[in-house]
Amino acid sequence: MSVYDVLKEKGITLPPAPPKGGLYTPVKEFGEKLIYVSGCGCNIGDEIGCGKLGKEITVEEGKKWARNAMLNVLSVVDANVGLDNVKSCVKMLAFVASDPDFYQQPAVANGASELLMEVFGEVPSRSAVGMVCLPDNLPIEIEMIFELK
Amino acid sequence: MSVYDVLKEKGITLPPAPPKGGLYTPVKEFGEKLIYVSGCGCNIGDEIGCGKLGKEITVEEGKKWARNAMLNVLSVVDANVGLDNVKSCVKMLAFVASDPDFYQQPAVANGASELLMEVFGEVPSRSAVGMVCLPDNLPIEIEMIFELK
Amino acid sequence: MSVYDVLKEKGITLPPAPPKGGLYTPVKEFGEKLIYVSGCGCNIGDEIGCGKLGKEITVEEGKKWARNAMLNVLSVVDANVGLDNVKSCVKMLAFVASDPDFYQQPAVANGASELLMEVFGEVPSRSAVGMVCLPDNLPIEIEMIFELK
Repeated sequence: MSVYDVLKEKGITLPPAPPKGGLYTPVKEFGEKLIYVSGCGCNIGDEIGCGKLGKEITVEEGKKWARNAMLNVLSVVDANVGLDNVKSCVKMLAFVASDPDFYQQPAVANGASELLMEVFGEVPSRSAVGMVCLPDNLPIEIEMIFELK
Repeated sequence: MSVYDVLKEKGITLPPAPPKGGLYTPVKEFGEKLIYVSGCGCNIGDEIGCGKLGKEITVEEGKKWARNAMLNVLSVVDANVGLDNVKSCVKMLAFVASDPDFYQQPAVANGASELLMEVFGEVPSRSAVGMVCLPDNLPIEIEMIFELK
Repeated sequence: MSVYDVLKEKGITLPPAPPKGGLYTPVKEFGEKLIYVSGCGCNIGDEIGCGKLGKEITVEEGKKWARNAMLNVLSVVDANVGLDNVKSCVKMLAFVASDPDFYQQPAVANGASELLMEVFGEVPSRSAVGMVCLPDNLPIEIEMIFELK
């Protein structure tokens, strides 16, 4: 079954691929059928996330922003190699902008893992860590490794 | 010589593999005989680490927590692919929860490197960086790439 | 054309490979012709960077430190596998020591991307994130994956 049929069936709409925020390559192929997807923020159209978990952003809001960041990742993959070429979700690194006393980064990152589970039926290896701040005051940024068919 | 004989000889006891802290895969195989090990914290049984380097945790304590985090990594590798299948230690990313004025992350991460040296006789490439906070207020979290035989 | 000719033509001088700051391997080969370069700081000779972006260090200064960190990365690659063996720049992770209100990590990391563009004519995938602090109070640390010929 095509990933695009899965998206349609689950009512998941991919946003347009986000604009680049600097001098880098959004998706880089390497090694044996692997791609590295550059860190994607969580802004989609008018939905602009600003602030830190434990301060301006709640865990529930953070989960939604993490899902949005992964939607941006998928949209970048779609635009560069096509989602049906993905064989496996290898690694997620979830950067969570955090107040020094915020300790629930994994609960927040689960918002992104849940999207991968819905779309690909599997979740990658993962780290979810607290960052003192992120570009544009984003609450979440996510980078990914996928394996291609 | 089996890694398990080395562990016995050096008196190193692997803890049980730590429980998962979210929706992810503990060990993911990818590419040409590689595995990514998800970020492991440093808690083992009753030994619960809490706080930041430069604040509640000293460098010496941090080294011990880093060693514990690597013990958890090895235990996860053991449970998933077996330690005797490890060919090489490729990459360590050591996340060190830090007060803004703490600058000795490498000395802390050496606690984890020393364990790898004892067990495998080699150390990986590495970065050791200061995090504003980590899940569950952990002082240390470590993710690893290993190459398999 | 040799990378060393490019360096000469552009007037780029590689510093001596920086001393190791802990127990790790500076360059580790893995998988299918890949290398992981351990996190490199931005100090070169008498040029010692100290402090955080948004506090002691401006964006323009940060760009220069990011370029210096990448010069150190290239110097480590040169010393270990030779720059002419590099086929492709795969991934950059730019750690930017940041005040909690500093949000321009990508502009800072561009200083490192620009050097890669000059030397190899391409840029890797990338994440650029805010760290509460880095070893030795460095403003910038960079780790890289390259693919070899």
